[in-house]
Amino acid sequence: MRAVNEGAHEGADEALPTPLLEGSVRLEDGAVLLLDRRVFPHEVSWVVARSDAEVADAMRAMVTQSTGPIFAALAGLALTARQHADGAPQEVVAAVRRAGALLAGARPTNNSVGDAVRAVLGVLEGERDGAAVAALVEREAQGQARYFRRRCTLLGQHAAALLEDGALLLTHCWMDMYLIEFVRAAHAAGKRFRYVATETRPYLQGARLTAHTLAEMGQEVTLVTDGMAAAVLSPYSALGRVDALVTAADRVSMDGHVFNKVGTLGAAVAAHAFDVPYYVLIQAPDPLSPTAGDVVVEQRDGAEVLSVQGVRTASPLVARGYYPAFDVTPPRYVTRIVTDRGAYAAEGVSRYFDDDGDGDEDVGGAG
Amino acid sequence: MRAVNEGAHEGADEALPTPLLEGSVRLEDGAVLLLDRRVFPHEVSWVVARSDAEVADAMRAMVTQSTGPIFAALAGLALTARQHADGAPQEVVAAVRRAGALLAGARPTNNSVGDAVRAVLGVLEGERDGAAVAALVEREAQGQARYFRRRCTLLGQHAAALLEDGALLLTHCWMDMYLIEFVRAAHAAGKRFRYVATETRPYLQGARLTAHTLAEMGQEVTLVTDGMAAAVLSPYSALGRVDALVTAADRVSMDGHVFNKVGTLGAAVAAHAFDVPYYVLIQAPDPLSPTAGDVVVEQRDGAEVLSVQGVRTASPLVARGYYPAFDVTPPRYVTRIVTDRGAYAAEGVSRYFDDDGDGDEDVGGAG
Repeated sequence: MRAVNEGAHEGADEALPTPLLEGSVRLEDGAVLLLDRRVFPHEVSWVVARSDAEVADAMRAMVTQSTGPIFAALAGLALTARQHADGAPQEVVAAVRRAGALLAGARPTNNSVGDAVRAVLGVLEGERDGAAVAALVEREAQGQARYFRRRCTLLGQHAAALLEDGALLLTHCWMDMYLIEFVRAAHAAGKRFRYVATETRPYLQGARLTAHTLAEMGQEVTLVTDGMAAAVLSPYSALGRVDALVTAADRVSMDGHVFNKVGTLGAAVAAHAFDVPYYVLIQAPDPLSPTAGDVVVEQRDGAEVLSVQGVRTASPLVARGYYPAFDVTPPRYVTRIVTDRGAYAAEGVSRYFDDDGDGDEDVGGAG
Repeated sequence: MRAVNEGAHEGADEALPTPLLEGSVRLEDGAVLLLDRRVFPHEVSWVVARSDAEVADAMRAMVTQSTGPIFAALAGLALTARQHADGAPQEVVAAVRRAGALLAGARPTNNSVGDAVRAVLGVLEGERDGAAVAALVEREAQGQARYFRRRCTLLGQHAAALLEDGALLLTHCWMDMYLIEFVRAAHAAGKRFRYVATETRPYLQGARLTAHTLAEMGQEVTLVTDGMAAAVLSPYSALGRVDALVTAADRVSMDGHVFNKVGTLGAAVAAHAFDVPYYVLIQAPDPLSPTAGDVVVEQRDGAEVLSVQGVRTASPLVARGYYPAFDVTPPRYVTRIVTDRGAYAAEGVSRYFDDDGDGDEDVGGAG
């Protein structure tokens, strides 16, 4: 399994350039290579993780984030299986289970990593030797990566169908594969959107990853600071009427609360105040989180807000920062949650699991 | 006139340390010295402006902002008068009038600079020689600076009276003399507030000036990024319930629209959504701006959002930023506008001008 999250995509036009960040996790013989998103695109450097623990450390340290950890965790499982392939089958199984727990628990808020890990762990039985178990793990990890990508494609198609050609969109943080597939789906449908990206402090994923990837893909993008989101959504914006706020979500509870990079809530509340629709992209709500209270919101080190790219920005007299990594947007501020099965009203998103696959409504040209 | 905006203050306890930024504009023999707020407190350096034009340039370049430009403009008028004191009276008058137009027009959105300049220009008549005109200008500039400071003190007292001891306050950008007098008024009233400050990109006034000044004055302050304002105001904040959002305003129109540093609107809308009161501090609404449409919102160079402290943060592929320096908060999101005459409901703020000096309501211990 090389280049876990790159490769031919379905349904997109060949003319659209492939962004660099699409191939940002690679499994090499003895290591998982992770493109360091903390410094990209100013530097293109790779973090070499030689064990499951090093992959988990890299995830915690934000070397990769958004949908990157899903591919990193799958690669970490395959690496661990390879490293134990000479052992007895039960040794390989035990090692992969330990790796799975470590990788799924690296960061608490996004549950897609856990879903992918559990799917791989589910096949761990019945093989006669360690090498066969290892091969099975690697095959299943590859399959999960492909499955995740396919669902991103569907999600992108459903989301693009909600918007008109030429729409001006505000986005926050970095939607990763959701963004890439969304842009491709629009392109395939003969649409072209214009983007306003928030820089997304403290890690600047918007200024670095989103803006870079959109530019690579030939899209029009304007950068703003996080505090400008409301101004851009308001009638006083010189950029013109925003047609929609569009973000990913790290988790959506069954009662329609959206957990996403801190800053999302402020943009969502402002969008609601100024009658701009807010579309949330996520493959599916989390059936294990009935309510917002069931989701753990990661609190990161407050020191991370006191500097920018390693350079101190706060006064030296300031001792304390506060950094909730995610915020919680109540369903009343969400227009639609767009999944791989279509778009749902936030309050009704639990119907994803008893659905015929069409979402709440006809989403036109989707899929 | 030295140290235009420092000196003994009224009504505050001597035990509270004097912050450095209070003395950030000085008139020397041949120049106005401006503490460079773009780099403070990482560097303590002074920009030397040797003419009215250089003072205006410094204001445009954000060497000083918030209430700093009022003191800078007054010092610039005094400097110009001194530089022409050997000429005929009408030469001095003409030079000071030209300086006044230049300084009042340096940045369009905050009208307090224009008010102070017009007050000085109003005394330009009847003197027999240039030196006498120059002396008059300098005396009037000093008087206006003292008057401005006195009104800040009153404003701070009215604002502090609205809040209980121990209140947790969220603030945005840098309230300058309003903040300093607000902290002093609270202290004099036996109250101590706790502060959460947004860093305020792109210039980081919150991270540098507000957080520094609060720490200098012995206040508890926690720093967050701009995108965290809504999360801090929401019920999910780990910092506890915020008792009020408190910001200054650069301008308030007579119909109660608040013009303040971009980012204010998002915080105000979120405060409203989560039932947190929002108090706006400004000496008075602008009688020359009946509605929001009468105020010019400064658009700054979009390139300013692509870097932090001179270091590029955005992807090199990003060509375009957008930087509205201020945003416009409609009166429905404002709980009270606190002036030097007391606190008013935003929709009724025009009553400031036909008032007996008590604001809308009893504000307890104020003044």
